Amino acid sequence: MTQKSSFQSIILELQEFWAAHGCLIGQPYYTQVGAGTMNPATFLRVLGPEPWNVGYVEPSIRPDDGRYGENPNRFQQHTQFQVILKPDPGNPVELYLQSLEAIGINPRQHDIRLVEDNWEQPAISAWGLGWEIWLDGQEITQFTYFQQVGGQSLDPVAVEITYGLERILIALNNAAAIWDEPWGTDVTYGEVRRHDEFEQSKYYFETADVTRLRQLYDLYKAEAEACLAERLVVPAHDYVLKCSHTFNVLDTRGAIGVTERQAFFGQMRDLARRVAETWLEQRKEQEYPLLKESQTLKVKGQAVPANRPSTFDLRPAGFVLEIGVEELPASDLDSAIEQLKVNVPKLLDDLHLEHGAVSVSGTPRRLAVMVDSLAPRQPDRADLVKGPPAERAFDKNGKPTPASIGFARKNGLEPSALEVREMDGGKYVVAVVKQAGRPTPEVLTESLPGLVAGIKFDKSMRWNASGVAFSRPLRWLVALLGASVIPFEYAGLTAGRATRGLRPYNSPEIEIPGADKYFEIIRKNGIVLDVEARKALIEAGVRELAASVKGEAILPPELLAEVANLVEKPMPLLGGFEKEFLALPEDVLISVMKKHQRYFPLTRAGGEGLLPYFVVVRNGDEQGLDLVRQGNEHVVRARFADANFFVREDLKHKLEDFRPRLGTLIFQKKLGSMLDKNERIEKLTEALVPMLGLEADEAVFARRAAHLLKADLVSKMVIEMTSLQGVMGREYARRDGEAPAVAEAVGEQYQPVPQTRPGLAVALADRLDSLAGLFAAGLAPTGAKDPFGLRRAAIGVVQPLIEHEINFDLRSALKSAAALEPVPVTDEVQAQVLEFITGRLRVVLMDMGYRYDVVDAVLAVQSDTPAGAARAVKQLTVWVARPDWSTLLPGYARCVRITRDQKEKFTVKPEAFVEAAEKKLFAVLEEAEKRKRAPGSADDFLNAFVPMIPAVNEFFDKVLVMAEAKSVKENRLGLLQRIASLADGIADLSKLEGF
Amino acid sequence: MTQKSSFQSIILELQEFWAAHGCLIGQPYYTQVGAGTMNPATFLRVLGPEPWNVGYVEPSIRPDDGRYGENPNRFQQHTQFQVILKPDPGNPVELYLQSLEAIGINPRQHDIRLVEDNWEQPAISAWGLGWEIWLDGQEITQFTYFQQVGGQSLDPVAVEITYGLERILIALNNAAAIWDEPWGTDVTYGEVRRHDEFEQSKYYFETADVTRLRQLYDLYKAEAEACLAERLVVPAHDYVLKCSHTFNVLDTRGAIGVTERQAFFGQMRDLARRVAETWLEQRKEQEYPLLKESQTLKVKGQAVPANRPSTFDLRPAGFVLEIGVEELPASDLDSAIEQLKVNVPKLLDDLHLEHGAVSVSGTPRRLAVMVDSLAPRQPDRADLVKGPPAERAFDKNGKPTPASIGFARKNGLEPSALEVREMDGGKYVVAVVKQAGRPTPEVLTESLPGLVAGIKFDKSMRWNASGVAFSRPLRWLVALLGASVIPFEYAGLTAGRATRGLRPYNSPEIEIPGADKYFEIIRKNGIVLDVEARKALIEAGVRELAASVKGEAILPPELLAEVANLVEKPMPLLGGFEKEFLALPEDVLISVMKKHQRYFPLTRAGGEGLLPYFVVVRNGDEQGLDLVRQGNEHVVRARFADANFFVREDLKHKLEDFRPRLGTLIFQKKLGSMLDKNERIEKLTEALVPMLGLEADEAVFARRAAHLLKADLVSKMVIEMTSLQGVMGREYARRDGEAPAVAEAVGEQYQPVPQTRPGLAVALADRLDSLAGLFAAGLAPTGAKDPFGLRRAAIGVVQPLIEHEINFDLRSALKSAAALEPVPVTDEVQAQVLEFITGRLRVVLMDMGYRYDVVDAVLAVQSDTPAGAARAVKQLTVWVARPDWSTLLPGYARCVRITRDQKEKFTVKPEAFVEAAEKKLFAVLEEAEKRKRAPGSADDFLNAFVPMIPAVNEFFDKVLVMAEAKSVKENRLGLLQRIASLADGIADLSKLEGF
Repeated sequence: MTQKSSFQSIILELQEFWAAHGCLIGQPYYTQVGAGTMNPATFLRVLGPEPWNVGYVEPSIRPDDGRYGENPNRFQQHTQFQVILKPDPGNPVELYLQSLEAIGINPRQHDIRLVEDNWEQPAISAWGLGWEIWLDGQEITQFTYFQQVGGQSLDPVAVEITYGLERILIALNNAAAIWDEPWGTDVTYGEVRRHDEFEQSKYYFETADVTRLRQLYDLYKAEAEACLAERLVVPAHDYVLKCSHTFNVLDTRGAIGVTERQAFFGQMRDLARRVAETWLEQRKEQEYPLLKESQTLKVKGQAVPANRPSTFDLRPAGFVLEIGVEELPASDLDSAIEQLKVNVPKLLDDLHLEHGAVSVSGTPRRLAVMVDSLAPRQPDRADLVKGPPAERAFDKNGKPTPASIGFARKNGLEPSALEVREMDGGKYVVAVVKQAGRPTPEVLTESLPGLVAGIKFDKSMRWNASGVAFSRPLRWLVALLGASVIPFEYAGLTAGRATRGLRPYNSPEIEIPGADKYFEIIRKNGIVLDVEARKALIEAGVRELAASVKGEAILPPELLAEVANLVEKPMPLLGGFEKEFLALPEDVLISVMKKHQRYFPLTRAGGEGLLPYFVVVRNGDEQGLDLVRQGNEHVVRARFADANFFVREDLKHKLEDFRPRLGTLIFQKKLGSMLDKNERIEKLTEALVPMLGLEADEAVFARRAAHLLKADLVSKMVIEMTSLQGVMGREYARRDGEAPAVAEAVGEQYQPVPQTRPGLAVALADRLDSLAGLFAAGLAPTGAKDPFGLRRAAIGVVQPLIEHEINFDLRSALKSAAALEPVPVTDEVQAQVLEFITGRLRVVLMDMGYRYDVVDAVLAVQSDTPAGAARAVKQLTVWVARPDWSTLLPGYARCVRITRDQKEKFTVKPEAFVEAAEKKLFAVLEEAEKRKRAPGSADDFLNAFVPMIPAVNEFFDKVLVMAEAKSVKENRLGLLQRIASLADGIADLSKLEGF
Repeated sequence: MTQKSSFQSIILELQEFWAAHGCLIGQPYYTQVGAGTMNPATFLRVLGPEPWNVGYVEPSIRPDDGRYGENPNRFQQHTQFQVILKPDPGNPVELYLQSLEAIGINPRQHDIRLVEDNWEQPAISAWGLGWEIWLDGQEITQFTYFQQVGGQSLDPVAVEITYGLERILIALNNAAAIWDEPWGTDVTYGEVRRHDEFEQSKYYFETADVTRLRQLYDLYKAEAEACLAERLVVPAHDYVLKCSHTFNVLDTRGAIGVTERQAFFGQMRDLARRVAETWLEQRKEQEYPLLKESQTLKVKGQAVPANRPSTFDLRPAGFVLEIGVEELPASDLDSAIEQLKVNVPKLLDDLHLEHGAVSVSGTPRRLAVMVDSLAPRQPDRADLVKGPPAERAFDKNGKPTPASIGFARKNGLEPSALEVREMDGGKYVVAVVKQAGRPTPEVLTESLPGLVAGIKFDKSMRWNASGVAFSRPLRWLVALLGASVIPFEYAGLTAGRATRGLRPYNSPEIEIPGADKYFEIIRKNGIVLDVEARKALIEAGVRELAASVKGEAILPPELLAEVANLVEKPMPLLGGFEKEFLALPEDVLISVMKKHQRYFPLTRAGGEGLLPYFVVVRNGDEQGLDLVRQGNEHVVRARFADANFFVREDLKHKLEDFRPRLGTLIFQKKLGSMLDKNERIEKLTEALVPMLGLEADEAVFARRAAHLLKADLVSKMVIEMTSLQGVMGREYARRDGEAPAVAEAVGEQYQPVPQTRPGLAVALADRLDSLAGLFAAGLAPTGAKDPFGLRRAAIGVVQPLIEHEINFDLRSALKSAAALEPVPVTDEVQAQVLEFITGRLRVVLMDMGYRYDVVDAVLAVQSDTPAGAARAVKQLTVWVARPDWSTLLPGYARCVRITRDQKEKFTVKPEAFVEAAEKKLFAVLEEAEKRKRAPGSADDFLNAFVPMIPAVNEFFDKVLVMAEAKSVKENRLGLLQRIASLADGIADLSKLEGF
């Protein structure tokens, strides 16, 4: 690196590059925006049918990214270069990579990776699919195919490329931080911006006045409404942006509660949607001024002539299909391979094409199907077509009726050719239609589009005028039968013989002479096509590198699987970081390395304690490996510095000291602050202690944990990485010298099933409080919407009780919770909550594999005590599976069925029994009733009932229940009622199949 | 013009140009600003000693410039390219002109003019001197040497260059409007921005909610205060900017009253000052990080070696001094020439240098002094130096005392050489000091800096580290005596022989071989050095061009003088505009042409009615004249279109219909809206009608005029050009069919002296209302500050009364005004107002040339009736000038002096007189008292008194006033008191000199 790049030279070069590629060059917007997307040059112009190509700088303000100028590459203001290409030019990724070369990033010297990113911006009701683009582990660009903006589906789709200029400069200059890098001549970036960073961070985190900001938000919102009422789109949009920025500042001040956030987003989303709608209306009224004649929207197909070769080899040949895509998400790649493994053989069978082995493999950029010995054509065959019944096909003279003549004609036969056959239990006229087999190329050309279209993804996207949806854009198709192209067309592409090489080599076009050469050519071009092969290479490499520093790798299978699907040519390499960072909580370190960076962390041999190393897997070969390593090390250093900043700030206070600030965090308007919630949890925990049967010491731990429970929510580390809530609470509690059981309970509060009983107590209190409060506030989940995670909360109530096998009365626990809420929680609401929890309990039990009828039978009775219900379901399931169940159940059922319509409960008078059978039955009943039974136990009930069965059967055989004498009848009914009620508190067996 | 320039190409080229010249390239700011100056990259960075060179685009938002996208080059958002050069590089104008060439503006093909501009931005307490730079009559750039920003003096001074990109694009493409010019490839500026212009204009003029905006302003202000309390400069500045933008929107909505504006500015100025101060403190604390060693501040002098030639011709020779400057303001050029005409001969005399004729001439870029036959050296001479008095210089023995010995030594003489001479009314020892004459080059080298420094201007500026102040920067010095350079140094320059040619020829360096060649060389280079010669050339050219379209030129002398001082080589050319514009009020057309554009308007021969032509004077020759004409025509078309827009909008309503909207315009918080004021004026006019003695029909006109009086303030045309207030009211009233006298009265309200009596009535009502109300609101002028123009208002009360000679009682008129105010106007306040008006009346009378004592004498008595006072002053002035005044005044004075200390008023008892002389005096007094006298008439009083003088003198000769008998004494005092009181209601003659 001889000459350092400067911040401004990158900007000037990008402007030149994109101007030369037909983009308008615009300017940053005049109000604070979180991203270039919010600039109307994107937000509005991507809407509607008009073409739009633009590039502009956007200094983007994200208050909560402020680090007082202390972090090497994180700032409340970072600078984006934003490019919009609409419609998709067909090669936007390649254009982007060229632009990187224009500013001096040689792909051979670096590791440029396209990492799945499902971009979503709820505040403007927008989403799209694409990637974060990583340069040596650093995200330098967001690349998105916008699917929806402002609630409007985009047609055509717009490509958004958002460069992070500071990070690019750091990478270009191989710098440790941005501050000392040149802005222009003589002056550094830090000299221009660092003091601002300090001041703005201080303002956003400490000074900004929450009351005033809320007023500002309201005024902006009102002004936006006023503009919309006048159909003033741009002024309205300006105020939406101001709302958004003000919300961000409030959020940074920690003033926005979880549920309040929803309300804010709802308002902003609504405004953004109306802005977008009004814009679209206006453009339509103006007849889309930018839709010039020269720019009719059409797909730019590949320049492959539609060569339909007429002669094919007549012998079976190999067939290869390669679907070339822009980088697929790891899981989509797996899914596509699985689907093809099923669908290809099925397709070939449906087409009557004989074939040898089928193999499917793939990398992020290609799905490859290889079929051995594919028949050159379909076999000839005869199909039977059923016609009218034989008796209606010929008249009395045996001549064909008009019906059979028509049928024959329709099938291209002479009526004389019709035959009569027995089928479907009758005699019918049939046409034997002979079909000559068609050449394989012909049928494949017809059916391959369907094969590709048949691959489905959880999330798919459109990108061009073909309207085709796929996980990511399709960019080329190779289809060869032997040496011949199968020129099928799909998504604006025509299949040919040209594949593409590795990204680091600039994706050269490579001709495949014939299907049999495919694997060899792919391999020679450095691409490892098989997923398992890539995994094995990575695992071996990681272990070897770990050993080189006397460590062991943490190699979670899901991480290995993901990394293997991020590269075409895996090249593991070792990176390190400063030992000082090891002082950070391990959870934080591992979470950063695994989750954010997809690195393999290393531990000391034996697994005790992290080493200051990691393994990263590059896509490519050895060239420039040192640069790649340095880049990755820079990234992880910055991330750890970031975490370090938060933890250090947090550790200036005890966890308990955070607690009062929970008062600034609104839980929900009607339900008060998070501090209010925490206080309710403390009281409720107190009430739950006896109900859960906690020991004295457990009770002490539970109370203390409840007191500290939500405090970490206002810690900086949790505000930054919400996923660490609880984890940081535990960590900070430990460091404060709290009892280990207290720290553990705090840590367990968000786990589905807390393992300790104090943890269980506080988790239940938290969840019951949310359920009671939010239902009472009218915020019960509706349809698919569950913004407050109440389904999860309900499952979090029942699942732990089942696993801990604690008998616990939900009804009275909920009553206690209800009494603590600041809003009335009526009996009716409590019933709703219980019903909701029962619904979740049912799902939990079903998920455990129990039969619905068994579950329903038990829940009809025991829904308030999940542990008991689960036990009963388990027991009943065993009974139901018994071979004698079919005799056992009817015995009981007869007793129930004959009595269940009686409104009166009859008292049994033993002296009034007439028949022996009834006397005997009464005697065995008294035996059964005397047995000791655990509450709710299905076993105990059935074990008591089984001995009664002979007597029951005899009774029904010999005794007429509905005797004429009223007293006799009622006495008998009373007897049966007592038998039926043996199941009280256990289950409603009438809900079982076979009852 | 083969290839059209595009908006973005201009930006890219300017970025490249300034980056290549060492500037940082920055970005627009993230909050709405009215100009790039507000961006902290200017506002903060120009403060303090650190160097700073930057260029950036700034989309600038000026709500009241919104024209709904209908004006060809006026928009609420226009795009600036802002350059800051700090310190002054020595050639910023030349760099700027090079940058214009870089974007394709050839100075030979255009008329590039530097037009004086005293830039001031009160909201941020900033000012500087420089120019608007005009391209073919269009302002395309503001070029300013910042002197002060945020209330802080700048050291070093920063050069600010602000390009108006839209106007540059229009000029480059020779376009009629911006809308169809390319932004980039395929897309026009209008396609990108025109609809925005419509929407934002509508928002700013119609939709923005005044109540909410006021709340926003208050919140921003509070937040700025909070940031300042924490010393957070940039966040505080952000909120100041938001205040400023919000204020601008309120202003555009017409919601800001004249006096309220002051309060807003005061607040914003205060905030801006504190921001600037805090920034400076911080930079100091940080030890000025950008003050790197390589960048110590020094003046870059010219590359002229300090050649001090030792041999000069011994014969008298011509001397030339040329002071090369950046374009001087027209009036500064005149002033400098006048000063040099005085100072040069004086200097030469002081230096004892014999010389021939001195001539001084100049152009905007040079001041030229020519001296004929300047002596090659001073004559030898002897100076007398006065020593101690002779009697103390020598002892009894005639030997020199120590005092005279010391004196002799001090003057380099032997004591024996001292002489004794009579001087200053005594005998003194003197030293005759002989001085050998020094060579002229030597003394000039020493004294020329003082000559240049001695030129003073109303406003002067600094630009480099020399600290020298001048009207505009000095850039070269030529000083030649004969063929030799006088190498004096000043302002970082060293005088040489190199002058510079015309700007359109790129200011080539031209060597002057000798003083005698100077005029010839200047003339050959096309420069017309003499102001009168330029005027004559222009006048001839304008008349000729006027005749070519059968018209006559409007040639006001002040315009001719100004235009002559804007060019070095005048080239008049004819331009035209669409006849449709002639429908605009003539006042508007002429005002635009003369005042804004410095064009000479043309009328039909005979002077009746304007022609659709004008004459503009270009600086340069014939090349590219068509382009220059088209450019100027474009400008005037745009300006007229603008005026047309306003007038057309205004004419949609009757003038009376504007009246209710005055309610939105705050006059002053405590004094209500402009509507309130107008209503008070109506009532007060009603009260003034009888006081002014208006006829019945005049009263009707005055009432109607009062009703409509302020309505035009909310017309669009007046909001745009405040100077047309009243003028537009008259115009609109006429077009509405109001009586001509009504229209006239409305038009006259702002004139110092309304000519009609209805006009006088409403003007007085307006002015008295302001005085009474604003004094009562505590807003009386203090010191030099008179933000509400109350001095002017007071003069506007007295001057018209004097000219109309209307006897009018200010005291009771003010009482009427006071009674109408919404705040209490106490007697004390009324007295203050009267005293204030009296002060102005005194100034008015003094300015009329009257003696202060005469004025004071009359005002002591008649200050409440200005017309009477003026009449009395005039009369008294004549009396005072009479030869017999010195006998006349003492007669009266004796009567006054002897009685003025008497506290009691004695009644004269005629029967009690004793002496004949007193009886006689009483008799003449009774005669005098019987005379018919006009109230306040000094003539009548003195004519009555003069005949009494003999009796007065006799009385004092013969009668002892202070007789021993009390009754006699008191009777005599009573007589004199009655004589003294003859002057009651006329004047207090004791204030006269000689009394």
